[in-house]
Amino acid sequence: MRCLLIYDIPDDRVRTRIADFCLDYGLDRIQYSAFVGELSSNHQEELMLKIQQRLGNAAGKVELFPICRQDWRSRLSIEQSGPAVDGKEPGSGRR
Amino acid sequence: MRCLLIYDIPDDRVRTRIADFCLDYGLDRIQYSAFVGELSSNHQEELMLKIQQRLGNAAGKVELFPICRQDWRSRLSIEQSGPAVDGKEPGSGRR
Repeated sequence: MRCLLIYDIPDDRVRTRIADFCLDYGLDRIQYSAFVGELSSNHQEELMLKIQQRLGNAAGKVELFPICRQDWRSRLSIEQSGPAVDGKEPGSGRR
Repeated sequence: MRCLLIYDIPDDRVRTRIADFCLDYGLDRIQYSAFVGELSSNHQEELMLKIQQRLGNAAGKVELFPICRQDWRSRLSIEQSGPAVDGKEPGSGRR
């Protein structure tokens, strides 16, 4: 099942390590602290356990949301890379 | 319907303004750049339109995910405020 993982982790080294875990589990980085990908519920729990262990007692907030196909289809997004360089309009809309 | 809005917005003033929009629409801030709350699909589109207008041609990535009840119930989360002060164990698990 598709899932979205987001985090707020102040410590740079811990944050980087946890980003690596997400990539190791095949998730794609969609934003600075947000990852999306297909994970079974076992792998979701396994990843969160690994993150918990790596966090130790460091500060951090990590949330993993399963996202069903219907919800995924209804998502809305805006993505702009900044002032138009070659006159192209910034893109937006359902994806 | 419950929804989750996440964003990466480099410009501080734009980011602050868009956070205000999210709060104005009754969303709760769950992480530095993540908000959750109940919005009809009309209000979801209205909010994203407002965000798009405020972004103008500034750089930014904004994603809004509807989250159905079933998915919400299956979410996993870790929340720790940092080194235990009074010996309490950091909390984790399904919420």
